[in-house]
Amino acid sequence: MTFFEKLHNAIQQNNSLLCIGLDPVEQFLPEELGESNTPFFSLNKTIIDQTHDLVCAYKPNSAFYEANGDRGIAELKTTCDYLRIMYPEIPIILDAKRGDIGSTNEGYTAYAFDYLQADAITLHPYLGQISLEPFLKRQEKGLFILCKTSNPGAEEFQNLSIEGTPLYQYVAKHVLDKWNGNKNCSFVIGATDTQAIADVRKLAPSLPFLIPGIGAQGGDMRSVLQTGLTAAKDGLIISISRDIIRAANIREAAQKKRDEINALR
Amino acid sequence: MTFFEKLHNAIQQNNSLLCIGLDPVEQFLPEELGESNTPFFSLNKTIIDQTHDLVCAYKPNSAFYEANGDRGIAELKTTCDYLRIMYPEIPIILDAKRGDIGSTNEGYTAYAFDYLQADAITLHPYLGQISLEPFLKRQEKGLFILCKTSNPGAEEFQNLSIEGTPLYQYVAKHVLDKWNGNKNCSFVIGATDTQAIADVRKLAPSLPFLIPGIGAQGGDMRSVLQTGLTAAKDGLIISISRDIIRAANIREAAQKKRDEINALR
Repeated sequence: MTFFEKLHNAIQQNNSLLCIGLDPVEQFLPEELGESNTPFFSLNKTIIDQTHDLVCAYKPNSAFYEANGDRGIAELKTTCDYLRIMYPEIPIILDAKRGDIGSTNEGYTAYAFDYLQADAITLHPYLGQISLEPFLKRQEKGLFILCKTSNPGAEEFQNLSIEGTPLYQYVAKHVLDKWNGNKNCSFVIGATDTQAIADVRKLAPSLPFLIPGIGAQGGDMRSVLQTGLTAAKDGLIISISRDIIRAANIREAAQKKRDEINALR
Repeated sequence: MTFFEKLHNAIQQNNSLLCIGLDPVEQFLPEELGESNTPFFSLNKTIIDQTHDLVCAYKPNSAFYEANGDRGIAELKTTCDYLRIMYPEIPIILDAKRGDIGSTNEGYTAYAFDYLQADAITLHPYLGQISLEPFLKRQEKGLFILCKTSNPGAEEFQNLSIEGTPLYQYVAKHVLDKWNGNKNCSFVIGATDTQAIADVRKLAPSLPFLIPGIGAQGGDMRSVLQTGLTAAKDGLIISISRDIIRAANIREAAQKKRDEINALR
């Protein structure tokens, strides 16, 4: 089964476009995990157990684990192993924003797809197609190319004009036309730029976009759904982290977000 | 001491512009390391002990360690610790090609600068200045922004025309004009494009560029030095990995490269 098939099934099964970002931060850990040897995994296990029937994907961001070095990476691995064993129907999107020269990318594919066994990854486009071949050839995996990101200042380079076309749109066109022979590419498009979502939706009428930036970063749910939904009323992976994983009642917070999304579909 | 000061001192002390890429690969490990519990560190220790007086920097690429998960990361940490304790005068450039949104980059600065205690890092420009602030504010560290990379196909996006200027040059100008308040930025420019080296040298007459791509990737040493040297006959960190770390006699191979570079200065 490819990543996109697995994602489609999870969307259907859980009636959900919600993706939870598994981004643990030391200072925001619940007090009762103070004694745990694996506090990040313990928090993730709680989140996963409480929400696995409410989401279409989980998205751990590698940075939060790398912050704790080898110990953090081991906890990320345990998290991915737990997910795969307990809830194999839910895809794992590793948010790692990698991108190196070709032979070096084999180290990153080994990390993401062989060691962690993630189903998908986020990638920087800057080095180009040939260098990303070690990712592109993994037909069964999902590759979310950074198109328009959700951060303040994203427009600095991403909106540069390439003969009248903003760079992010040029990247999207180029990936769709040239990189996508294995039909395993899609895009990261921040919720903070609904114009970008609308633009790329025109180019890719049915692709599921990964949409960070709702919540803490200020993206608006209604506008995102209005501009980004496909004809089949899906095609958006709405990634939310802090508003759910730091909530007093995690399940309640996740359910509220899922239902809020569904009410707008 | 800042990274650039440390680098300058190492260049002087060892009369060298050579940087060795510490990029271990399982299948190319020397046979005698087959039994080691820490084969990557053991190889690195051998390389470092044999070459520390011949180089201006070491550049481990995180991908090669991540390929082995938490165990690999622990070996990278041991390598950095060993370098810092035994040869504190030699700077460590972590080749990690990171770049995420602002708050997430704090995880990556914790990984690179607090856990590994590297002196410098390589970064993707695509998300822009504001998102890279957690790196930019680390005044004492070196930040090598990907400008023109050494891989085949690098021109796909990097040479796009922004009102007549190739994107890589636009990135360089922009970083120099806007990002470099702390004087801690420089660039990665591949040895395979001496035009790019010449172009960016004009913009930054004295900055030390990180130059991968000589050797296995086909860059030509003579052209790189002719176009890239500063008036002071330095300003290039010539990074070589495979040709040295897989040589039968590592010290001899490193010495030969250092001398070859110096003969052209």
